[in-house]
Amino acid sequence: MSSERLIYLPLGGAGEIGMNAYVYGYGKPGKERLIVVDLGVAFPDMDSSPGVDLILPDITWLKERADRIDAIFITHAHEDHVGAVAHYYEALKAPIYARNFTAHIARRKMEEYGHPEDAVQTVGPWPHQQGAGPFKVGFLPISHSIPESSSLVIDTDGGRVIHSGDFKIDLTPGVGEPFDAALWTEVCKDGVKALICDSTNVFSLAPGRSEATLFPEIEKLVSSAEGMVVATTFASNVARVKTLAEAADKAGRSVVLLGRAMRRMVEAALETGVMKDFPKTISPEDARGMPRQNLMLLVTGSQGERRAASAQLARGKYQGLEMKEGDLFLFSSKTIPGNEKGVIRIINQFSEMGVDVVDDSTGLYHVSGHANRPDLETLHDVVRPQVLIPMHGEHRHLREHVKVAEARGMKGVLAVNGMMIDLSGNEPKVTEYVETGRTYLDGTSQVGALDGVVRDRIRMAMNGHVTVTVIIDEEDEPLGEPWVDPVGLPKTGRSNAPLVDVLEEDLGQFLNRAGAKTLRDDDKLNEELRRIVRQSAMNEVGKKPEVTIVVSRLS
Amino acid sequence: MSSERLIYLPLGGAGEIGMNAYVYGYGKPGKERLIVVDLGVAFPDMDSSPGVDLILPDITWLKERADRIDAIFITHAHEDHVGAVAHYYEALKAPIYARNFTAHIARRKMEEYGHPEDAVQTVGPWPHQQGAGPFKVGFLPISHSIPESSSLVIDTDGGRVIHSGDFKIDLTPGVGEPFDAALWTEVCKDGVKALICDSTNVFSLAPGRSEATLFPEIEKLVSSAEGMVVATTFASNVARVKTLAEAADKAGRSVVLLGRAMRRMVEAALETGVMKDFPKTISPEDARGMPRQNLMLLVTGSQGERRAASAQLARGKYQGLEMKEGDLFLFSSKTIPGNEKGVIRIINQFSEMGVDVVDDSTGLYHVSGHANRPDLETLHDVVRPQVLIPMHGEHRHLREHVKVAEARGMKGVLAVNGMMIDLSGNEPKVTEYVETGRTYLDGTSQVGALDGVVRDRIRMAMNGHVTVTVIIDEEDEPLGEPWVDPVGLPKTGRSNAPLVDVLEEDLGQFLNRAGAKTLRDDDKLNEELRRIVRQSAMNEVGKKPEVTIVVSRLS
Repeated sequence: MSSERLIYLPLGGAGEIGMNAYVYGYGKPGKERLIVVDLGVAFPDMDSSPGVDLILPDITWLKERADRIDAIFITHAHEDHVGAVAHYYEALKAPIYARNFTAHIARRKMEEYGHPEDAVQTVGPWPHQQGAGPFKVGFLPISHSIPESSSLVIDTDGGRVIHSGDFKIDLTPGVGEPFDAALWTEVCKDGVKALICDSTNVFSLAPGRSEATLFPEIEKLVSSAEGMVVATTFASNVARVKTLAEAADKAGRSVVLLGRAMRRMVEAALETGVMKDFPKTISPEDARGMPRQNLMLLVTGSQGERRAASAQLARGKYQGLEMKEGDLFLFSSKTIPGNEKGVIRIINQFSEMGVDVVDDSTGLYHVSGHANRPDLETLHDVVRPQVLIPMHGEHRHLREHVKVAEARGMKGVLAVNGMMIDLSGNEPKVTEYVETGRTYLDGTSQVGALDGVVRDRIRMAMNGHVTVTVIIDEEDEPLGEPWVDPVGLPKTGRSNAPLVDVLEEDLGQFLNRAGAKTLRDDDKLNEELRRIVRQSAMNEVGKKPEVTIVVSRLS
Repeated sequence: MSSERLIYLPLGGAGEIGMNAYVYGYGKPGKERLIVVDLGVAFPDMDSSPGVDLILPDITWLKERADRIDAIFITHAHEDHVGAVAHYYEALKAPIYARNFTAHIARRKMEEYGHPEDAVQTVGPWPHQQGAGPFKVGFLPISHSIPESSSLVIDTDGGRVIHSGDFKIDLTPGVGEPFDAALWTEVCKDGVKALICDSTNVFSLAPGRSEATLFPEIEKLVSSAEGMVVATTFASNVARVKTLAEAADKAGRSVVLLGRAMRRMVEAALETGVMKDFPKTISPEDARGMPRQNLMLLVTGSQGERRAASAQLARGKYQGLEMKEGDLFLFSSKTIPGNEKGVIRIINQFSEMGVDVVDDSTGLYHVSGHANRPDLETLHDVVRPQVLIPMHGEHRHLREHVKVAEARGMKGVLAVNGMMIDLSGNEPKVTEYVETGRTYLDGTSQVGALDGVVRDRIRMAMNGHVTVTVIIDEEDEPLGEPWVDPVGLPKTGRSNAPLVDVLEEDLGQFLNRAGAKTLRDDDKLNEELRRIVRQSAMNEVGKKPEVTIVVSRLS
């Protein structure tokens, strides 16, 4: 019998930015007790996942071992870390531990799905340690773009591991705890087996800037504006929301919070005490009567999301408020790759209204929540782990992070989703490859990304769809003419006759010629009808549609 | 009777980047003789135009006035300027004028669609002027990222107008003509009524850099690489392709051109004489036997296009060549907004192979083909027009360009697609709003963007599709059970029963209960069946699918 071992297994987040889900295990091989760190979501897009509501990590491996899971720990309340807790609560049924602000957000999600709120337990920061089977886990405060973000100090008899969570090195983060180098040094002084480390900004070569550098610039911009000012950022970036509100306050502007998430997050930060005070806000109703130059709206929708407040203002009124020539719109945010078109759309809509738009291109009005390369190196130096394992990055980020570590004499391991790493020995090694993937929340159902459901929808989006109905009578003869219903195809093509007529004509000719053997054979008939529709449509309109054939037999 | 007037009417390109199509007219109001400047395309995306092959400007207005069109002038051979000439040749039937290289490319397009090549006529550069009705038009050389790009000097009795086309101010463009300030000053010395001007880079505040600055950096990179080097750029950027090839040559590497466009453009540049020489290239077959460090591949696909050589190399072999650990891939290009995900996908695929990827983030390996703000101002100063009308930009670019002009004491007019501007008087004014839009080339058919064809496809992509077949017998009674065929929907939902069973059950119950009146009424029956499918699917899987109802009556 082999002895106990410590394992690390990313199921989401290592090979992509989004849907974080990491597993640690300790015990005899194949019988390790397990903890899960973060259970997040990723967001769908029209290219690869049209109509999908959310993307969740595939946790089949975990479900099959649910009896071995002692706890779920959530590092912070961003959707890509906490977004799947409610969706997977029933499958995993393990207690969920988080700090106060994160727990508050997680409980709202549980509530929304009818799960018990007390499944989420609040844990204090380091030096408190939460036991979970063979694990003791501490929440070590670190700065990020949301309150109470924490790294996890994961202790077992196999040694200490640090899971960085998302972080930046910020000594003046506004809301939330500054990076405390002395505390970190103390925690790491007896040696750290592995640092599992955020890699998002490994390609950013300049040192990161502090949240506190923004206030003077934002204040200058807001004070000098002549009309109404509207600013957007992630609502969960409570420090930024506060900075924006305080700039408004200083400029003699009343603050209006627009968008549900914006109000919720400010409330949550005040209720949980992570934010002590916030400038007085007024309602949209009260704002309507005020001079524009005395207003600042803080709105959701920094990524151009069509239903968010920013996009609604770009299209017209939102809660009775609208933008006008001479107003200013500020993106205190970065556009996430893939969202460019949505953001550009609303910028142009504002331009048509005569609204001036300021974005982050100058760097004056936004700082990242993730550690740039020099700051990653700072953390490496403080932690001095035996091995660095990059996470929270696409493959290119993980690979670069390993290179950065190795260039400075550290040992780096590139582990992507599904690679189980044994951390026990002196040399970390891959012990197993676990199947991973994506699960789509599609409406209210969960479907596998490879199940074909979404693939079929993409095909219809590309090629259109044709329904063919044929009735075969008791003598196995076609009854009447075939009926064709195209959706999403040009009405006419090369011949200038309606496409539906051309298809019905071609199918009718085939049926008239078809022998009894073909007409009796469902598979054969289906195959031939499909082939004719696709070929005929190709000739007419240059597209091969998806086809549904319905053969009704009266016999 | 009013006197003659000079008009400008953008039909595409003013309010978007892409599908350029500008009209100038001279004559009595409503009877002006017309010329068209550029006939380009834009490219579809999954978000708004899935399955579409190309986006063309809607030229309904022009078609209705085809007898008044004297000529089409093409400024340069980029797809967004020349891409629609073959598609619209039959509708417009006007002679097409272009310089040698552009004409060469345009003729290939005409040939492909079976149109006469001699419809495209080659015109020499300024001081040559081509007559067309009341117009005399000269091609004034200017630098851009493709050979023989030209501004147009458009003369009528109404005065001289300059249409900049796409341009940058480059004194050392490599291939193609440098910006000749003396020539431009001479052309403009007697006064210019209007400058219709490229606005693409109006938000770029630093002066643009010359193509010539790239060679030393690219050469350094290529020489120091240890494995194979693969570089991508737009094939039409012949100067860049040459720079890359010469860097390879200097580093002792043989050049392989991969991708049809890459070979075609180099051939076209040599055949037309715009490029005098090009390093010797070898075939992919010959390259296979050579040491990797002696090879440099120049490949298509700088925007991550799935079928281009770059994406194919990222997935595996292309023409027997493949990338390996230690090789280098260079994007000598900028990612166009909207293409980020495709480009990032191939970067990560290369990362998985151990290939190092270098992009334009350092600015060392790519320069833009468009004039930055200081260079736009240089052109303003050389031309000194009575009025500046920005084009080739989204609304935000056009608006900013007007602001830049006005801040420097010029008169600026913001004209978007469909705004007809009368340039005759001292004050340019909008005289008419013309309906414009987008035409989709969908397979081989042209459909209007608002026709609903693509909207239906998007709906199926979001919501899935269900076919319902019901047979009604001679007595107006349902014959057998309703038949349901879902496509692109989860197989099961809340009840865990197959969705298809749930839908058939609910429809069957309805039909059993339905009165004779409903069963006899096609519209009523359709409406009810559709409503039940959508409601029932919503309950089961949380989605309301698109529905095709086929009711077959035996009577």
